[in-house]
Amino acid sequence: MSTNSLNVALAMPASTARTVFPPTSLDPLERSLNLLSHDPIEDFHSPEGRAVLVEADVLITGWGCPMIDDAVLDAAPRLRYVLHAAGTVKHHIGDACWERGIQISSAADANAIPVAEYTVAMIVLANKKVLQIAQALHSTRTAVPAEQLFPDMGNYRKRVGIIGASKIGRHVIRLLAGYELEVVVADPYLSASEASALGVGLLSLDELVASSDVVSLHAPSLPSTKNLIDAGLIERMRPGATFINTSRGELVDQEALLARVEKGDLYAILDVTTPWVLPAESRFYSHPNVLLTPHVAGSLGTELERMAASAVQEALRLSRGVPLAYQLKAEDLAITA
Amino acid sequence: MSTNSLNVALAMPASTARTVFPPTSLDPLERSLNLLSHDPIEDFHSPEGRAVLVEADVLITGWGCPMIDDAVLDAAPRLRYVLHAAGTVKHHIGDACWERGIQISSAADANAIPVAEYTVAMIVLANKKVLQIAQALHSTRTAVPAEQLFPDMGNYRKRVGIIGASKIGRHVIRLLAGYELEVVVADPYLSASEASALGVGLLSLDELVASSDVVSLHAPSLPSTKNLIDAGLIERMRPGATFINTSRGELVDQEALLARVEKGDLYAILDVTTPWVLPAESRFYSHPNVLLTPHVAGSLGTELERMAASAVQEALRLSRGVPLAYQLKAEDLAITA
Ligand SMILES: NC(=O)c1ccc[n+]([C@@H]2O[C@H](COP(=O)([O-])OP(=O)(O)OC[C@H]3O[C@@H](n4cnc5c(N)ncnc54)[C@H](O)[C@@H]3O)[C@@H](O)[C@H]2O)c1
Ligand SMILES: NC(=O)c1ccc[n+]([C@@H]2O[C@H](COP(=O)([O-])OP(=O)(O)OC[C@H]3O[C@@H](n4cnc5c(N)ncnc54)[C@H](O)[C@@H]3O)[C@@H](O)[C@H]2O)c1
Repeated sequence: MSTNSLNVALAMPASTARTVFPPTSLDPLERSLNLLSHDPIEDFHSPEGRAVLVEADVLITGWGCPMIDDAVLDAAPRLRYVLHAAGTVKHHIGDACWERGIQISSAADANAIPVAEYTVAMIVLANKKVLQIAQALHSTRTAVPAEQLFPDMGNYRKRVGIIGASKIGRHVIRLLAGYELEVVVADPYLSASEASALGVGLLSLDELVASSDVVSLHAPSLPSTKNLIDAGLIERMRPGATFINTSRGELVDQEALLARVEKGDLYAILDVTTPWVLPAESRFYSHPNVLLTPHVAGSLGTELERMAASAVQEALRLSRGVPLAYQLKAEDLAITA
Repeated sequence: MSTNSLNVALAMPASTARTVFPPTSLDPLERSLNLLSHDPIEDFHSPEGRAVLVEADVLITGWGCPMIDDAVLDAAPRLRYVLHAAGTVKHHIGDACWERGIQISSAADANAIPVAEYTVAMIVLANKKVLQIAQALHSTRTAVPAEQLFPDMGNYRKRVGIIGASKIGRHVIRLLAGYELEVVVADPYLSASEASALGVGLLSLDELVASSDVVSLHAPSLPSTKNLIDAGLIERMRPGATFINTSRGELVDQEALLARVEKGDLYAILDVTTPWVLPAESRFYSHPNVLLTPHVAGSLGTELERMAASAVQEALRLSRGVPLAYQLKAEDLAITA
């Protein structure tokens, strides 16, 4: 460690640190920066927390890190960088950070990967109705006439509609490049030339929803996206189509979605709902055309190490004097997750 | 149509023709070749069959086409090409075709695509235990502690073992290039330099099976591969691993597989079993760690059009005097599906 290396500290609950930063994940840091402590700061205002914070140039934060506001920054005279080893920074980066010019970066790109992978797997199974057929086989215990049940099954000559060319939406598009599916996008912030550079068609939300075999939602939860997928759009989805939501329940009219599913001609794959957790009596749990997963599309298990590695790489960039790869701008927050 | 264009005919059951060759799929043929009839030859020895066969330079065949043997070839004096709009040609291309130098091509590459897509979707869900977690949510109707149930879940730092760099195996490898998974292959016919060109590690079958988080079987069914995945290999699979079979049941010791699954520490995703269809009392149907699908990974529904298009493209190559893209060699049959 050189004498003028940056001082770095972790700030997050010990439980987050244990799962996201297994011991060896910090080794690269220790070679190039001065890791102030192996224990994370859990409370910025405790005596131990303050003692570390006062020395820190760089904070690596994780899920559950407390809010970094004026009071915290007053106790952190050297702090210039906050590197978040998870997705959104909206829960712990206060206005004060932006106002004081702290550089903020996040691992939202790393966190987008598993969500996109989950989505692509579900798109493939949905177009082919694989899980419905497996269910029929499970209950009948005899040959299932798959093509009679689902004459349009297949991942060929199908349209996939992506709502939101977000980080996740873009990774879905990237992975789908290996498939013979037509991909279309609806996103008010995406220009026609950006869409054609991505190799996708740009449609209005209305057109996309009415013409896609699978509709997958990847817009962020914002005041402007609340109830974005309203009863009218849900009604216009194609008979036999599948709607995938890995974004947030708030974007979707939950009642209208349930009503359309119960009509019997729409399939839903939902990693998120409102409320989350659903009450035990919710009919989403039991409808055979709904596949419900408990908010697991994002980074979990080994995937947490990818977010840790992303934050560690950002710290190493600082130690080499290289710009951050995933620096956030305050003005982006209005349209990002 | 030019006067010296090739005469082409379809040979397959009418039911195959109806699903694989929707009317417009033959339009490109009619522009460049002489389509002798819109109705397929269903029986080479019927008067109508013979009348078409005697004129044909090219046969486009499909699932259920009767065997093309010496008697058929004697009635087909002009025949030089058989283009199969499906996978294996072993059920309808007799030795006589090879002996007489008929050029044979198949759509096995097109048919490999959906199987590989199914496989990749299942690999992603298996590494993340998504379907197990969905099942737990379905039955408990409350928050599921996914990471406590499956601490190693995730599609990062995981090894995927592909048995057989077959057409399907290679497409799986191609699709997985977009993922951060380590891919290893076992295949006695793959050289180290071919493996490194594919970007995968080459392991013995034993090492692959013992070290992979997901083992996916893509070797063809041959006398030499019967029971390839025997009780010993099944025993050596990692606790918590998933075994995927989209190849053929005959390659796997079914009893040993069921026994290991019932031990509780191996997951199985089976699109094929022996026998197929399983008897209603088979315990494969009901074990929660088995996902059974009824031989649907291959081309079905819209995917049949991809195989039709592949055969039509082969015919168009002939009409342009260009070599076939998917010509088979007799000597390959000993190690291919
Ligand atoms: N299920 C999970 O485990 C999980 C994990 C991570 C993220 N998420 C959620 O996934 C969603 C997407 O996350 P991200 O990081 O890809 O988002 P992001 O921050 O990259 O999204 C920003 C982009 O969304 C697009 N957008 C904004 N408003 C839109 C609108 N009205 N219509 C269409 N597009 C619009 C714009 O292109 C914008 O640039 C978020 O809701 C996030 O909370 C879920
Ligand atoms: N589930 C379905 O719907 C479906 C659809 C199509 C094919 N299949 C099956 O999938 C399997 C693979 O089909 P394909 O067209 O990719 O095969 P293929 O004909 O391309 O396979 C040939 C290759 O397999 C490899 N191989 C041969 N023997 C091997 C061994 N002992 N161990 C490892 N590798 C070996 C060699 O590389 C050989 O070149 C076949 O069993 C086929 O019947 C199933």
